[in-house]
Amino acid sequence: MIKALEQANAGSDVILNLLKQHQGQWLSGQFLAERLAMTRSAIWKKIEILRKEGYKINSSPRKGYLLADIPDRMLIREIRDGLNTSIFGQRDIHCLEKTDSTNRRAKELAAFGAAEGVLVIAEEQVQGRGRLNRTWFAPAGENICISLIIRPPLLPDTASRMSILAAVAAAETLIAAAGLKATIKWPNDILVGSKKIGGILLEMSMEMDAVDYMIIGLGINVNTPADHFPAEFRSKATSVITETGKPFPRVFLLRRFLELLESWYRVFRESGFDPIIIRWKDLTDMLGRQVTIETINGSCSGKVTDLDCDGFLILRNDREGEMRMFSGDITIM
Amino acid sequence: MIKALEQANAGSDVILNLLKQHQGQWLSGQFLAERLAMTRSAIWKKIEILRKEGYKINSSPRKGYLLADIPDRMLIREIRDGLNTSIFGQRDIHCLEKTDSTNRRAKELAAFGAAEGVLVIAEEQVQGRGRLNRTWFAPAGENICISLIIRPPLLPDTASRMSILAAVAAAETLIAAAGLKATIKWPNDILVGSKKIGGILLEMSMEMDAVDYMIIGLGINVNTPADHFPAEFRSKATSVITETGKPFPRVFLLRRFLELLESWYRVFRESGFDPIIIRWKDLTDMLGRQVTIETINGSCSGKVTDLDCDGFLILRNDREGEMRMFSGDITIM
Repeated sequence: MIKALEQANAGSDVILNLLKQHQGQWLSGQFLAERLAMTRSAIWKKIEILRKEGYKINSSPRKGYLLADIPDRMLIREIRDGLNTSIFGQRDIHCLEKTDSTNRRAKELAAFGAAEGVLVIAEEQVQGRGRLNRTWFAPAGENICISLIIRPPLLPDTASRMSILAAVAAAETLIAAAGLKATIKWPNDILVGSKKIGGILLEMSMEMDAVDYMIIGLGINVNTPADHFPAEFRSKATSVITETGKPFPRVFLLRRFLELLESWYRVFRESGFDPIIIRWKDLTDMLGRQVTIETINGSCSGKVTDLDCDGFLILRNDREGEMRMFSGDITIM
Repeated sequence: MIKALEQANAGSDVILNLLKQHQGQWLSGQFLAERLAMTRSAIWKKIEILRKEGYKINSSPRKGYLLADIPDRMLIREIRDGLNTSIFGQRDIHCLEKTDSTNRRAKELAAFGAAEGVLVIAEEQVQGRGRLNRTWFAPAGENICISLIIRPPLLPDTASRMSILAAVAAAETLIAAAGLKATIKWPNDILVGSKKIGGILLEMSMEMDAVDYMIIGLGINVNTPADHFPAEFRSKATSVITETGKPFPRVFLLRRFLELLESWYRVFRESGFDPIIIRWKDLTDMLGRQVTIETINGSCSGKVTDLDCDGFLILRNDREGEMRMFSGDITIM
């Protein structure tokens, strides 16, 4: 039964690839039937499978089939089509229509041994969270809500390196793929102008001597128009469609993020954290700013002078000298 | 059904308390039946329940019942009998005959929301682990294998504070309860002389801004005689019975540990980490030693000069100056 289903999907994949290669052209049922060594009615069944997944395929008794539109859905085959990574997104991908939180699902998978590179994606996240359990607004089908499992060789005290690295990849994705002037607001927000367009939620499980797993949660507002945000977010949030004026294919952004993240992660594994610090400094405008940072241990104020080799933000004021900040809520003065 | 079972146990508890209050004395069936407003045959059934749990209760048709011995088993009622804590051990206690790893069980409970103070105990741990997945030898019924859930308000970079705090409580337990000259070998071993008698395995789940939960795993070799250790451990491991020459009630050690741990944890919450550092320095002989520390990021050597306010060991050598060590494998020169 499972075997049969795989064959059916495999057939659909071949047909889809042929249609994509000839996008804008009609392919006759006869041509497809010959290429796949199937009857024309078997071809028609596979076309129906693709239509159910959201592909718009026109058909005509005389001309055959034409791929009119690719759906903006998080389909595994679309994510992998042209994905230039070797690990991230190349292991299991769990695509969910709806979940409470992709980070929570990914943590469950990781706790049962899921490998580095396993990905959880949701079209809709009903209890999506930002840091400290804050609500993350994520309506169905419009945004990127993903969680990736990684297992880096890190001690717990340098965990913030991965948060910095993921923020670099997220900001670069918006710059490279969507042409936006994205910047990083420490520790985990991605801004366009002064408005938040995305964020990273890093969670981890560890012993004292090593990280067991980390979950890189990424949220990006893609196709939610400005006036669809709830009133309380409207002045603080933006989206790709708001900034560029047109809908953007989410899969394209996701592929780019996975590629950039894997590429920076490889740099980190091979050359250490310094190259990431340098790139982070290009992408942030935190340096030199007067800020107040609140943590669960209290708050402190000062001027941002640096990001150190462990991923801590360095703050300085006259009274307390230099302070190393692991994470926290930052307010720019 | 559950209600009936609770009543049965409640009755057994009352009988056991009466027998304990009159230990060494016979209590007549008539006396017990009147005190509990039960028939003498109902009393007999409850005595049988206690016997199944391991209590040695002598009976005589004329004299009644006499508590001859309390089993050295990790029974919830024995743990709580005289336990002077308000949280640790006062929430759910999960007593298991056999488990792969108490830390693993505790992590599962914590992931589903189990509160601070919930305790997992195993008579036998078949995949017991030390740090970095090393084997921890723990034969059935002879040792302490527990895991406690805590939810401290900590940032991930200061997680080692809890490892230091737990080691202080463990060393003090062996000193106060068993009269041993226990010392702390950084980061998580408890020694008597140069031999290991116990250890702490701290695991945790966290976001960047806060710890979600930590699991304090404690293992103490209690009643395993020296010649019962596997050959490869014999020169490096010891136990309470080896050091004192007599079997020791494990429940007594466990109660003491929970009390000391809760007391130090309260000190930490109310007065910060400094008092724990001071006590740790009393209990270790690491200071001033030449050591090599191996971590997943490499190794470094130097003289131990201090333990800092975040729980890092401070190492100094001429070439690299001062180094802050979060955790690692230490070798004393």
